Amino acid sequence: MTGFFRDIPKLTYQPDADSDFAFRHYDPDEIVMGKRLEDHLRFAVAYWHSFAWEGGDPFGGRTFDRPWFGSEMEKAKLKADVAFEMFDLLGVPFFCFHDADVRPEGADFAETTRNLEEITDYFAQKMEGSKTRLLWGTANLFTHRRFMSGAATNPDPEVFAWSAATVKTCMDATHRLGGENYVLWGGREGYETLLNTDLSREAEQAGAFLSMVVDYKHKIGFKGTILIEPKPQEPSKHQYDYDVATVYGFLKRFGLENEVKLNIEQGHAILAGHSFEHELALAASLGLLGSIDMNRNDYQSGWDTDQFPDNVPEVARAYYEVLKAGGFTTGGTNFDAKLRRQSLDPEDLILGHAGAMDVCARGLKAAAALLEDGALEARRAERYAGWNRPENKALLTSDLASIEARVRDGGLNPEPRSGRQERLENLWNRYV
Amino acid sequence: MTGFFRDIPKLTYQPDADSDFAFRHYDPDEIVMGKRLEDHLRFAVAYWHSFAWEGGDPFGGRTFDRPWFGSEMEKAKLKADVAFEMFDLLGVPFFCFHDADVRPEGADFAETTRNLEEITDYFAQKMEGSKTRLLWGTANLFTHRRFMSGAATNPDPEVFAWSAATVKTCMDATHRLGGENYVLWGGREGYETLLNTDLSREAEQAGAFLSMVVDYKHKIGFKGTILIEPKPQEPSKHQYDYDVATVYGFLKRFGLENEVKLNIEQGHAILAGHSFEHELALAASLGLLGSIDMNRNDYQSGWDTDQFPDNVPEVARAYYEVLKAGGFTTGGTNFDAKLRRQSLDPEDLILGHAGAMDVCARGLKAAAALLEDGALEARRAERYAGWNRPENKALLTSDLASIEARVRDGGLNPEPRSGRQERLENLWNRYV
Amino acid sequence: MTGFFRDIPKLTYQPDADSDFAFRHYDPDEIVMGKRLEDHLRFAVAYWHSFAWEGGDPFGGRTFDRPWFGSEMEKAKLKADVAFEMFDLLGVPFFCFHDADVRPEGADFAETTRNLEEITDYFAQKMEGSKTRLLWGTANLFTHRRFMSGAATNPDPEVFAWSAATVKTCMDATHRLGGENYVLWGGREGYETLLNTDLSREAEQAGAFLSMVVDYKHKIGFKGTILIEPKPQEPSKHQYDYDVATVYGFLKRFGLENEVKLNIEQGHAILAGHSFEHELALAASLGLLGSIDMNRNDYQSGWDTDQFPDNVPEVARAYYEVLKAGGFTTGGTNFDAKLRRQSLDPEDLILGHAGAMDVCARGLKAAAALLEDGALEARRAERYAGWNRPENKALLTSDLASIEARVRDGGLNPEPRSGRQERLENLWNRYV
Amino acid sequence: MTGFFRDIPKLTYQPDADSDFAFRHYDPDEIVMGKRLEDHLRFAVAYWHSFAWEGGDPFGGRTFDRPWFGSEMEKAKLKADVAFEMFDLLGVPFFCFHDADVRPEGADFAETTRNLEEITDYFAQKMEGSKTRLLWGTANLFTHRRFMSGAATNPDPEVFAWSAATVKTCMDATHRLGGENYVLWGGREGYETLLNTDLSREAEQAGAFLSMVVDYKHKIGFKGTILIEPKPQEPSKHQYDYDVATVYGFLKRFGLENEVKLNIEQGHAILAGHSFEHELALAASLGLLGSIDMNRNDYQSGWDTDQFPDNVPEVARAYYEVLKAGGFTTGGTNFDAKLRRQSLDPEDLILGHAGAMDVCARGLKAAAALLEDGALEARRAERYAGWNRPENKALLTSDLASIEARVRDGGLNPEPRSGRQERLENLWNRYV
Repeated sequence: MTGFFRDIPKLTYQPDADSDFAFRHYDPDEIVMGKRLEDHLRFAVAYWHSFAWEGGDPFGGRTFDRPWFGSEMEKAKLKADVAFEMFDLLGVPFFCFHDADVRPEGADFAETTRNLEEITDYFAQKMEGSKTRLLWGTANLFTHRRFMSGAATNPDPEVFAWSAATVKTCMDATHRLGGENYVLWGGREGYETLLNTDLSREAEQAGAFLSMVVDYKHKIGFKGTILIEPKPQEPSKHQYDYDVATVYGFLKRFGLENEVKLNIEQGHAILAGHSFEHELALAASLGLLGSIDMNRNDYQSGWDTDQFPDNVPEVARAYYEVLKAGGFTTGGTNFDAKLRRQSLDPEDLILGHAGAMDVCARGLKAAAALLEDGALEARRAERYAGWNRPENKALLTSDLASIEARVRDGGLNPEPRSGRQERLENLWNRYV
Repeated sequence: MTGFFRDIPKLTYQPDADSDFAFRHYDPDEIVMGKRLEDHLRFAVAYWHSFAWEGGDPFGGRTFDRPWFGSEMEKAKLKADVAFEMFDLLGVPFFCFHDADVRPEGADFAETTRNLEEITDYFAQKMEGSKTRLLWGTANLFTHRRFMSGAATNPDPEVFAWSAATVKTCMDATHRLGGENYVLWGGREGYETLLNTDLSREAEQAGAFLSMVVDYKHKIGFKGTILIEPKPQEPSKHQYDYDVATVYGFLKRFGLENEVKLNIEQGHAILAGHSFEHELALAASLGLLGSIDMNRNDYQSGWDTDQFPDNVPEVARAYYEVLKAGGFTTGGTNFDAKLRRQSLDPEDLILGHAGAMDVCARGLKAAAALLEDGALEARRAERYAGWNRPENKALLTSDLASIEARVRDGGLNPEPRSGRQERLENLWNRYV
Repeated sequence: MTGFFRDIPKLTYQPDADSDFAFRHYDPDEIVMGKRLEDHLRFAVAYWHSFAWEGGDPFGGRTFDRPWFGSEMEKAKLKADVAFEMFDLLGVPFFCFHDADVRPEGADFAETTRNLEEITDYFAQKMEGSKTRLLWGTANLFTHRRFMSGAATNPDPEVFAWSAATVKTCMDATHRLGGENYVLWGGREGYETLLNTDLSREAEQAGAFLSMVVDYKHKIGFKGTILIEPKPQEPSKHQYDYDVATVYGFLKRFGLENEVKLNIEQGHAILAGHSFEHELALAASLGLLGSIDMNRNDYQSGWDTDQFPDNVPEVARAYYEVLKAGGFTTGGTNFDAKLRRQSLDPEDLILGHAGAMDVCARGLKAAAALLEDGALEARRAERYAGWNRPENKALLTSDLASIEARVRDGGLNPEPRSGRQERLENLWNRYV
Repeated sequence: MTGFFRDIPKLTYQPDADSDFAFRHYDPDEIVMGKRLEDHLRFAVAYWHSFAWEGGDPFGGRTFDRPWFGSEMEKAKLKADVAFEMFDLLGVPFFCFHDADVRPEGADFAETTRNLEEITDYFAQKMEGSKTRLLWGTANLFTHRRFMSGAATNPDPEVFAWSAATVKTCMDATHRLGGENYVLWGGREGYETLLNTDLSREAEQAGAFLSMVVDYKHKIGFKGTILIEPKPQEPSKHQYDYDVATVYGFLKRFGLENEVKLNIEQGHAILAGHSFEHELALAASLGLLGSIDMNRNDYQSGWDTDQFPDNVPEVARAYYEVLKAGGFTTGGTNFDAKLRRQSLDPEDLILGHAGAMDVCARGLKAAAALLEDGALEARRAERYAGWNRPENKALLTSDLASIEARVRDGGLNPEPRSGRQERLENLWNRYV
């Protein structure tokens, strides 16, 4: 034991506890819609925010004071020790990581790879004594200055090569650790100014890159899901994987829509001008719903605040879409959330996650109750019921001239009907 | 002559004029990159803003006092008379209209259609004595309450039918008048709340609808271009034709990407979180650049302000993308711009357009000069020059394992190079 | 009985009811922090949204079909009949109105005033048979075209005069009906472009105008509170009463900070880039918290959506600030919220309000529980506890040189302490 | 000579030069409105962006590779050497700095102060051989972790003390170097969450702090101007010095409105939902216009991008307000602008500034021409001309009842007049 979390106890479900260190709503064994709550939510801790981030922001440096900060392998292992202690305290079934979160950067590619392999072995060893598994791995292709102008979409082919090589090593590590998904987030795949950018070339590069990722997955027999995580901007002025609809078009263009799914983040949805539930519902309707990055974005801030979720009704909207789409398969609920930089204490790290897990549990249970009740879906179906009539269904395969004749000669004059939004919101609030 | 514009003279190019009623930069006959300026810019007046809009906003009613306001056919013809007088004063080569802008609504579909036909005949007659042609026609499927829950995507199949029939009549009118394009803008094709919406069904409806439009175009031998105009929201909370990337995905999904192009609006780009030049460059790179709705959006307002453009450098950015893509074919520069509601006077209507035409002329000429100079494109090409080397080109068809071996064993270590943004901005400003 | 609401029953508190037409959380007689819930919340219906608004938006016209639409006095009285029926069905203790909501516009000022007086008498009569009182009255100085360039801040002094005269008549009507407040919302007090605006002059006009309003209040013995309602923009590009902080500066400038308080709206706070609770907390800290306009704004829409609130935790944040400040005195909870324009049915009108009343009741009760518990306030006080020590309190009246000497010579080196945000959010979520 | 800028020549005004290293529009000696252009613009280089910033962003680390990076005094002096070489190459008359930009942090307050004094002496020495003077100095009270919860508004009085002591040393340094202003920017004076914040206490702390700053200025005989720089958010969720209007209210509250002026930044104006010209015009109308931080903000990014200005018409709007207010006295044009992090080369640093100086020169000259022409001001005055009539002027000191009588009995019925926005925009574009 590292002693970092000192005397913080293992958190359990104690609905009436007085202590802050307990779940009031998250009982992993509670059965909801025929499945354990843990198996619905599939919580994951994000290594980067919790263990690698130092508390900096654009106007200030490190605020956290962690014994594992530094670039030696020993520190990386201490970090892993603490991480697995936290996974255990929280009872989370999964974690997620980038290569750069877990291993020291080496002097060259080969050394960096050896470092990753060493820490992968260390993780594998730790996972033997832990119930926590790997939800997904990913490559950090954005922090180092070599990626400043892009990774796959860099004007310099050598950076493309470096990035491809790095993804290969990260897929290997993810595969070795039994990861259930592999994620690509293209924070530098975009531009700062159109003046120096060739959109066509860069799209070709991105398409070729992703195709190779898919090929490699099959080559090594990785059974997990390849996921793209959309984000509209930040760090770049404009990123190519803008939102769900944009990535769908990209996948269609390169014929990859059956090979890749999406990892959708609340904060990224909001930065793109959408609600989280919109992105989830759209992905589900396109067959692309893979996994979620759960957090919250401050509605008054124009950047990615990555806060722990705290609003149950909002979270319920998200899980309603997930459940309606059949729930997670390989995906899960990754907390892509970081402490506020003023939250210095080890207990803040535990409480940030614990509170968020309770918020998600409340949200999912409320969503499940409404979905099981069926009232909302019945109302939705009723609204479109006219389309079930054969003569109306036939409209979709008719032609303008025939329809025009029917309207003109039939004296058609459709009368609007109430959309009943407030009534449905009330229905929603009976459950949430 | 209606007398509406009283003694406002026909505007001509008089660079040193003292009068407000002259062009200082727009000389239709000036040759730019081998083409007359008029043929580059292909200006169009939007009938709705200039002649149908009454000056209302969400908190106030009509401010304009026009002799043609009213619902009689006589008024509609007076409106047309004034419109053609304005086209003539401005010397614009094109105009655009919705059915609802030009004809009175009838008691039923048949009467409404007869009204449209009557006014179409009237237009045809006026066009005989005018140099102004039709850039595009379109159907207003958003103002009447029957469209409140959508047109093609309405839960009520009868509204779908009504909409299809209406589009048929508007395509007929456009064809009859020699229109060079036909536009679809789906302001009600979206939702207010996901609680009552079935995204999958509505997408199927939209796809079927657009396919019928394309079929009908071919059936009647219309040679113009079918254009979709993206907009992210307003009037709906969320609209399906969100932006260029979203519409591309939609077209790919329904196999229509070779049949339909885009009409891209500055204000809509901004509401979607993009720059206008981004949307244009992206459309060009996808082969979808059709036409533009030129206006400006107030950067501090969260709704579509549809103002006349007044910032030359911004406009130059847009035309740079248009010219780089080869310029307009059937498309043009439609002023989807309205007077401020306090601009009550007939002369305001003339001056709003005249100023915008000068702004566009300055922008296009600056863009053309820079493009002809070639310096910017040379710098752009140089940045990607590494990709021209065969061993680098081969990366795009390689595989992760081979690339990884090359990087690891070759000791590759790419060094970042300056993106030179400020230098390119300075270059830009030498021309603008 | 007008029959408009047909067989909709009077709503009562029935926590386990199956019907949509019941309150599940709002029991007016429930005692919270020693006061009846009705007396805490002081709900008001907004006449304009519920009875005068026709369902239009910038791209579409009237969708509602109400028997009282029209400009005759008979219609105005029918509207009042329906309104009071709704007040009774909902059991709301208050309503609010603009002059233009309730009376037909006359041919001139005198006739318009007589119309207002007639309907004021009619209201007075109806109020005798009703428990519903007037929370506040106000003048509509924005809809008519005469106000297009401002009311008090119009460049035309005659519009200033018209506006002042109108406010006089509306204050008279409010006073006559026993209104508890009088509100000023300056939707046209702002500008479209700085090019034609003189900010200094307009500020002087606004200050003089408000001073006259205050004087007139005292002259007629009106005991209610004068309230300004801040809004940053819409309909104007920029409005002078931008937000709480801006109005505070304006009141200080004209020496009116002890005469005027604020009516703060959720949607307006959001448009100004603030959270609702920020505006409330700031107003409270400045002694300006008067009343609230409760609604919700769509976070993805850049205009004022005026929806009924549906998110309990957000509403709880607002009431926490209200309760911490001592609760309402003359103020209350006015639903400045309108049905979605697709919500056509009479029952939608009832259900929109009923759901919102329940949401507010839940929010206020949760906020009260947390405030009574005291845990949050104890934590807050503890964070600042260092300031209670005399040598620290003395810092506020010291000088830079003395403090510098103390820091330099005393070897002061303050160590940061956790801000505990996540822990406090968890605490919050125990109550909400 | 350090050799950092290698063979980059001293930039001079060469309107027809082919080289990138020349001014095409900025001739310091050009006379505009009776004053040298250099004396109008009063350009300053910001030490932090150009010499201290390392190219990091929230998702990536240092990209720049500067020989002076490091924490030794020798490096700080090398940095100063390069800085003064750049001032000379550009011919800028001013620079600005924070303490943390220029000196190494010491082990304690005393050592840090000694470091500042040493570098201040070094600057003083360098300034003897340079034409470049100090526009303003300021204290960095936001980067170090001790300021994470605020400086003057920290819940910990010891941080208040540290901050006050630091400002004292920075004012001393500024005074010693002949600075013309002293600036306070409160990036950490705000909050992350209201849950742990006491707005009232923090405002009292801020007021006391600023009063001490003003007192100290007088005590040491500093003749420069104390400036507050408003910013709405970032790094904090909400900052107290939100915008011009908010700071005005704060100054009035603490009776400091005659002691303190404002340093207004383009990017901060935009983040607050205003145009730059709005903030300038408002400050001028309140007598608070002090100095400007010139840059540009990306309209599609929700954070402070601090780019070099590149849009002449926008810049012209800003200088029009500055000139109309009488021009700068102690203030100037500080480029609070940083290279894009991909702009790695020394020449990028020179070209970023050179381009911006030309843009500003074009903007100011255009604004001056329009102001001298008088046409815009004549139109503005004409719009308010009605207020010059005695009976209208009297309205401002009348009372509601008298005005109402005048309106009612006089049959007043004001007719709206065109606001002529488009005509004025055209006028503007004749000059810009």
